[in-house]
Amino acid sequence: MSETLLEPTGLENLRSARLDAAGSAWSERITTNAAFAALTFTTNGRAEGSVATDITAGKHGFRVDEPAGLAGGDSAPSPVEYALGALISCQVVVYRLYAHQLGIKIDSLEIKAEGDLDVRGLFGINSSVRAGFSGVRLLVNVTGPETRERYVQLQVAVDAHCPVLDLFTNPTPVSVELVTEN
Amino acid sequence: MSETLLEPTGLENLRSARLDAAGSAWSERITTNAAFAALTFTTNGRAEGSVATDITAGKHGFRVDEPAGLAGGDSAPSPVEYALGALISCQVVVYRLYAHQLGIKIDSLEIKAEGDLDVRGLFGINSSVRAGFSGVRLLVNVTGPETRERYVQLQVAVDAHCPVLDLFTNPTPVSVELVTEN
Repeated sequence: MSETLLEPTGLENLRSARLDAAGSAWSERITTNAAFAALTFTTNGRAEGSVATDITAGKHGFRVDEPAGLAGGDSAPSPVEYALGALISCQVVVYRLYAHQLGIKIDSLEIKAEGDLDVRGLFGINSSVRAGFSGVRLLVNVTGPETRERYVQLQVAVDAHCPVLDLFTNPTPVSVELVTEN
Repeated sequence: MSETLLEPTGLENLRSARLDAAGSAWSERITTNAAFAALTFTTNGRAEGSVATDITAGKHGFRVDEPAGLAGGDSAPSPVEYALGALISCQVVVYRLYAHQLGIKIDSLEIKAEGDLDVRGLFGINSSVRAGFSGVRLLVNVTGPETRERYVQLQVAVDAHCPVLDLFTNPTPVSVELVTEN
């Protein structure tokens, strides 16, 4: 049975058990040797079609494309939509993690992300315009039995520990190696 | 017929025609009014299951999950894998765009991304460890008939204009609004 089809209480118990197990396992490993906390995530992409990419990440995969306005076939979400989706979904994981840690109950959680992008940067029309998002807005909609103060406390903990929010808001060093045939 | 099944020459002609059309359309719109260059991308997510999220982006959607080690059901790639996939696929689009603009031919393009992440930041075990990637490595493998110098010229143009590379390497302002019931 898919876990999304479980009754709310069954799902909460499953989530709680998993978060306990994951937390204990990591804590034990990291206490033994802090180096165990250092993970490397690897993702591979192959350019396909007009401007699309087939991505593989472990046993999973997904396609990325562009709409016709950016020379694509509109067969899948675009790179910047995946970036916003990564931010939303990372927030969700960290909401689950810290809600569990702080004993805060969540009935439902929906997050909308908006990103502003001026394509003059991408097209090289204006070098003073950055290529990426000039700004991103997150609208986090949470329901549940707690006071607003408790959810604000949760939000503060989440935003201090969310990996993809950190990726968006702080510079990450990226090195590029180009391999050619000759 | 899917565009990935076209013969290489047919696909190149299709891509070239699309990139010409997209470039002309944007150029005309932006020349008329620079404000037309300003786009807003919107993505919505709903928390599902244990720690998963269902994302919608226009007519497309995708699921995000975590492996068991992070309390997930391992039904889909994780948030940070989508972030790396967004970076790879954005590079591919911008390689296509600038290869077309510079008259550089590409036979195949594969990109691998590796991201280092220390989970002590996520779990709040060590506040001096950042929550996000400490570093990312891109390995770009391009084949084709051009000299290495030409592909290096292409890489420099791509890395100066890639929206998701800009998102990774530079800080992006993110505002968060929390909506609760009371």
